[in-house]
Amino acid sequence: MNFSIKKERLMQSVNECLRAVATKTPQAILTTIKLEVSLQGLKCTGSDSDISIESFIPIEEAGDEVIEVFNAGSICLNARLFAEIIRKLPTDTVELNVKGNFQTVIKSGKSEFKINGLDADEYPKLPTIDHEPYALQAKILKEMIKQTGYAVSSAETRPILTGINWKVENNMLICAATDSHRLSKKTIPFESSEEINIIIPGKSLDELSKLANDDEELVEISFTPSQILFKMKNILLYSRLLEGNYPDINRLIPTEEKTVMKINTKDFLRAVDRASILAKDDKSHTVKIVSNDGLIEISSKTSEVGNLLEEVQASELSGEEITISFNARYMIEALRTIESENVVINFTGIMRPFVLTGENDASMIQLILPVRTV
Amino acid sequence: MNFSIKKERLMQSVNECLRAVATKTPQAILTTIKLEVSLQGLKCTGSDSDISIESFIPIEEAGDEVIEVFNAGSICLNARLFAEIIRKLPTDTVELNVKGNFQTVIKSGKSEFKINGLDADEYPKLPTIDHEPYALQAKILKEMIKQTGYAVSSAETRPILTGINWKVENNMLICAATDSHRLSKKTIPFESSEEINIIIPGKSLDELSKLANDDEELVEISFTPSQILFKMKNILLYSRLLEGNYPDINRLIPTEEKTVMKINTKDFLRAVDRASILAKDDKSHTVKIVSNDGLIEISSKTSEVGNLLEEVQASELSGEEITISFNARYMIEALRTIESENVVINFTGIMRPFVLTGENDASMIQLILPVRTV
Repeated sequence: MNFSIKKERLMQSVNECLRAVATKTPQAILTTIKLEVSLQGLKCTGSDSDISIESFIPIEEAGDEVIEVFNAGSICLNARLFAEIIRKLPTDTVELNVKGNFQTVIKSGKSEFKINGLDADEYPKLPTIDHEPYALQAKILKEMIKQTGYAVSSAETRPILTGINWKVENNMLICAATDSHRLSKKTIPFESSEEINIIIPGKSLDELSKLANDDEELVEISFTPSQILFKMKNILLYSRLLEGNYPDINRLIPTEEKTVMKINTKDFLRAVDRASILAKDDKSHTVKIVSNDGLIEISSKTSEVGNLLEEVQASELSGEEITISFNARYMIEALRTIESENVVINFTGIMRPFVLTGENDASMIQLILPVRTV
Repeated sequence: MNFSIKKERLMQSVNECLRAVATKTPQAILTTIKLEVSLQGLKCTGSDSDISIESFIPIEEAGDEVIEVFNAGSICLNARLFAEIIRKLPTDTVELNVKGNFQTVIKSGKSEFKINGLDADEYPKLPTIDHEPYALQAKILKEMIKQTGYAVSSAETRPILTGINWKVENNMLICAATDSHRLSKKTIPFESSEEINIIIPGKSLDELSKLANDDEELVEISFTPSQILFKMKNILLYSRLLEGNYPDINRLIPTEEKTVMKINTKDFLRAVDRASILAKDDKSHTVKIVSNDGLIEISSKTSEVGNLLEEVQASELSGEEITISFNARYMIEALRTIESENVVINFTGIMRPFVLTGENDASMIQLILPVRTV
């Protein structure tokens, strides 16, 4: 393998792949980036075996020659070392040349690194996915991930809850995440003749969000029973899927109404955020709200430190007056997903889950389980 | 105590004091900020007993009323809690009101915090320093601190080396720092009829650098045998001095010359930085340079990983050819203090300290002890 390449462009692809490269692994090959150069261009691959990212650099981009290939071939180089070397090279162009025994010479100006590489044939094969792809706009994908991903469980006790459930029914894609204290559900139109029901690791979707830079781009999505592939221009992200049955979330979402409160999203968010400062008496970060004729009293306390009392005016309140307590962090994170000026909260009882929706936005609901009011 | 104040201005002073507030201490009072309001303004104080910062907010600033005092008085409030509350308050103005038993009401819009404070009389008294002050321009002070502070020892085994020695002789202020592997010395004109020889903790000077925002400002400096005070507009920084005798650094600085090399500062810095990537075989991060008729060969290696070889052209080289090895980090940090386009390095032998100076800058020297070349 022998080629020269523009340093900045190589850096970009190496950084993209680095997102997937394992940090702790007994398998040395997974700490490397695989480089494969052909007359089409350079393919860089990073993987921790759960997520794999492939970033392609074509020979020419926007009319500029990016790569000059002298000899096709491939090599695996320690990913973090390689990234640091490329970043610090003195000139705009770098030449890579694989000699005998996988030793690789990286040359830029008067600087010459000799690095011991590994055989690219040892690198794990990426899955083959020949399912006909679906397509979603990057902007819509990223919004979905933002609105559901925060509710994913971080505990490994129930691995299935570390994923986001994607279910297609009646040409609608329903994305749901829950950590069993709260739940998020987002629904968007999605044309499909098959029934789809998969669970994608939250972390994989998080990486997808960061890689999808062009909001207008169409991301192609295809999968097998165990793997999903997101295909962007020059970037592929593979992720394994989680195995098992996702809980039936519709069972958890209340259908009745008891108290419906409409309130300015930002005002309420900021008030709860202030209350969270003094909500440190228990692990639940308990904040209490009490309604009184449309005036919402928000309070919290930390023993021996102090308390907060604050009032926010609801723009509408119908049904019974309420007194309810909740985890401030859950409320803050749910409110942050709501882009409407007003949030509508439907309370169904002092110890029953309550539901947040953006005003005039039926596509998403956020559900939170209250905590006991003391 | 009862007053109202512009939130942003209070936030600024609280943040300044917070730099000194202890994070770990058995003394609850040292985790607080002391607030003292009078008809002149509000004085905020933070301290960890080594460093104390006092930030003053006058009633009026630039013609604007900043504070309205209803009742003079004082209180101590948990510093980090207070800072978080102030930052998140809903309106531009905040009212503080101390009730019975040191309970303090913080009111902003419809938000009302009640915080348990501590008696301000319990707060440690700051030292009295009535020495006639010297004055230095903030810009000069900050440059001195940047150029010497990096060489301070971080090990507590010889506490005296965690400080910077300030010594006044013949109307010159000599600042020196060493961690016994390297040394930095900066000299500036300083009119004084007394002999001064003090050791200021590196950390205190670091904080001073961050507080001194206005480069043109004159900073007043005064001290006692155990304390130093830096006085800026509205900000006072007190620091204890380190006790003991600072080593005689002049003894360590070689006077002879063997090889004198002049080289572009940035080119050499970047080459050593690249070499540092592969200088991981030992704790010394060893990089080797070999001169050959003005061409400087820079090399490093990490066993089983690889090596780097690079050439930089010296603009001048006189005396014997050299082969010498050094800690890459020490060289990088020393080169970063040099603002001249070219650095002059005087080598005096393979295991003898070498000295870096900026071309045409006699005010500063950086000294590094080499490591054994293998």
